[in-house]
Amino acid sequence: MAIRLDATDSNFNAAFADLLAMKREVSDDVDAIVRDIIDEVRARGDDALYDYTAKFDRFDARSKGLRISEAEIEAAVAKVDPEVMKALELAAERIRSHHARQLPKDDFYEDALGVKLGSRWNAIEAVGLYVPGGLAAYPSSVLMNAVPAKVAGVERLVMVVPTPDDVLNPLVLAAAKLAGVDEIYRIGGAQAVAALAYGTQSIAPVYKIVGPGNAFVAAAKRRVFGLVGIDMIAGPSEVLILADKNNDPDWLAVDLMAQAEHDKVAQAILITDDAATADAVEEAVKRLLTTLPKAEIAGASWADYGAVITVPDWETGMALANRIAPEHLELAMDNAPDYLDKVRNAGAVFVGHYTPEAVGDYVGGSNHVLPTARSARFSSGLSTLDFVKRTSVLECNVENLRQIGPAAVTLARQEGLEAHARSVAKRLNME
Amino acid sequence: MAIRLDATDSNFNAAFADLLAMKREVSDDVDAIVRDIIDEVRARGDDALYDYTAKFDRFDARSKGLRISEAEIEAAVAKVDPEVMKALELAAERIRSHHARQLPKDDFYEDALGVKLGSRWNAIEAVGLYVPGGLAAYPSSVLMNAVPAKVAGVERLVMVVPTPDDVLNPLVLAAAKLAGVDEIYRIGGAQAVAALAYGTQSIAPVYKIVGPGNAFVAAAKRRVFGLVGIDMIAGPSEVLILADKNNDPDWLAVDLMAQAEHDKVAQAILITDDAATADAVEEAVKRLLTTLPKAEIAGASWADYGAVITVPDWETGMALANRIAPEHLELAMDNAPDYLDKVRNAGAVFVGHYTPEAVGDYVGGSNHVLPTARSARFSSGLSTLDFVKRTSVLECNVENLRQIGPAAVTLARQEGLEAHARSVAKRLNME
Repeated sequence: MAIRLDATDSNFNAAFADLLAMKREVSDDVDAIVRDIIDEVRARGDDALYDYTAKFDRFDARSKGLRISEAEIEAAVAKVDPEVMKALELAAERIRSHHARQLPKDDFYEDALGVKLGSRWNAIEAVGLYVPGGLAAYPSSVLMNAVPAKVAGVERLVMVVPTPDDVLNPLVLAAAKLAGVDEIYRIGGAQAVAALAYGTQSIAPVYKIVGPGNAFVAAAKRRVFGLVGIDMIAGPSEVLILADKNNDPDWLAVDLMAQAEHDKVAQAILITDDAATADAVEEAVKRLLTTLPKAEIAGASWADYGAVITVPDWETGMALANRIAPEHLELAMDNAPDYLDKVRNAGAVFVGHYTPEAVGDYVGGSNHVLPTARSARFSSGLSTLDFVKRTSVLECNVENLRQIGPAAVTLARQEGLEAHARSVAKRLNME
Repeated sequence: MAIRLDATDSNFNAAFADLLAMKREVSDDVDAIVRDIIDEVRARGDDALYDYTAKFDRFDARSKGLRISEAEIEAAVAKVDPEVMKALELAAERIRSHHARQLPKDDFYEDALGVKLGSRWNAIEAVGLYVPGGLAAYPSSVLMNAVPAKVAGVERLVMVVPTPDDVLNPLVLAAAKLAGVDEIYRIGGAQAVAALAYGTQSIAPVYKIVGPGNAFVAAAKRRVFGLVGIDMIAGPSEVLILADKNNDPDWLAVDLMAQAEHDKVAQAILITDDAATADAVEEAVKRLLTTLPKAEIAGASWADYGAVITVPDWETGMALANRIAPEHLELAMDNAPDYLDKVRNAGAVFVGHYTPEAVGDYVGGSNHVLPTARSARFSSGLSTLDFVKRTSVLECNVENLRQIGPAAVTLARQEGLEAHARSVAKRLNME
């Protein structure tokens, strides 16, 4: 059973603070192992990749090569059911059109003094995409990472995916093909991250690495951060639902369990201004858990991290929501759009009774890679912006330099940087 | 003497690769020390800050408190020369107006199916700004970090700055005041980063930490990354100048040394299509080093990391520039604007003979916090975007859900996520 809190209780603040402080992530100390793996890949390149793949994924990649060939991809894709392929295509197309709107525009202008300033955006030339193998191999995640990269104009998009026991995942390959991934390698773990960052004989290095992974992958990304760019390191997923009394408790229950079925450390929270709704949803969850295939996982998440909070009014409810800063926020109220302006901290908002979070996971068009563990207070979901970078441009003529240069000379000398000062002064015949 | 390379030499490719691979950063292994400091601050709060400040900055902050008071700030600011204050004000105003153009716009729209999608931007509520003490205390850096944060709408901008021997830096405080910093604390090092990330009795935690610092500060930022956001971890600075024959060698020399005077591990590179210019600049650098106050630092940087490269044409020159991906790129050619389109990887470009990089350091208006060590291949300089975050918004009505929902059901079942599938199916009376 989830924890039940009432915002009007005298001990609520302490209990809510405990809920916020709950640490759901197990931080395995894998850093030493990961350091060794990275060192091995740097020193031995492909040979290290063959060895780790034999050890962790139980097959010999030497004979067929690290790269998954076009023929292998075609053969796998041919196995995908046409209805599933159509669903993937709809998802890819909707993601593409939404993310195209996020492309930033160059901005060049002359300011009041005639100084020319500008911002020019360019795609990152080469990006690596980590895709987990086994259970967490989600074709939807391939689309969510790869499509925005291609929309941004990344020329070389390189995917790595472990293929345990040498088994390819047709849907993952189909999604990669749809999204326009350029190269796919059958490697995973910290060794794959190292290969992307440093390069090997078969794999040219990339400049940024995105995509989810286990503790080893996360630790490896943290280590290569700086040499290459990385995306946020994702934690366990969470949903917060704000619901008024005009809801079918079964709908809310299944939305909560859709989050909980991801992971025993996922978190699902309901905030409602109606105690009867709170009771009814708790009952509905119980019923639902008797029929769900992943009831064991979802039930553990709900018992350990789930919460049902009653609030006296929506001002209180919105304030709590912004403190939680959830990855996913469902506004299941009749007048849900009215509350959008009050949302300060959330990865994504799903508005109204007919927008379950799961529709956003697949076919809404917006990205499902979102800030977890309260990081929506300071970061954003994945977007086209993650695959571009900005160069600023400054151009003065002698007139401009005469107007603003002397202030630069003054400040440079205050900072003890005489060559800085002279580089301006010399052009103005100042001393 | 800097290294001299000729792009037409047969051994050029290997020599250039060596130049790119040059490791300028000394990675002190301070991680264990930093971990202990962070643990102490988490456990003991203000008391730990008092102890570390006594130890590292040699004064007792207990009596006057950690926060620098309004009265102290006013008293310090009163000491600043009026001409210097005017220069700071010009800089702040130009930074403000340029960064205001970077504010992203919300985007709400209905797509072809009538699904409502949106992106809403909000400022990060609380941001911490680390400002180094001593030699590296640059008021210009305070402006470059603090002004964009305030332009973005950050409500609580908290600055930390070590004040060794209890000595305040008037210019740094003046810059903070001009930029609108809300709170200033007299602490530095890993302990200050820990205080910002976790909070203490006197200091409420922030959600993101920006600003440059030494190896301890960098290691602490890397450690708290995830709990809070951080900016890029800056390495030693660098400039690349592309110059044709129509240049005064003394101007180019002083521009190169303006970079070199920062740090013995700074890097200054000249690429020219004219061998006589290459020779003349090398001579001019020698002469300049006899008169520069920081000749020892600049000379060491030039000897160890400087490079002069001659190229047969600008196609070659631009290709090398994009491989170097410099923090600062000066285009000192007569037709410099024509080459802007060819710049793919650079933090900032300074166009033409009258735009020395130093003008951008202070009063150009664009930001001087830029990607170092080739990271311009995948990241951007600091901007207003670093102080905002995006929430995506999705709204379906029953009609929309009927159109796109079935594809979500199909994909969710392929991924083995039955509750996801049912959360959509239930609303459509599907099974």
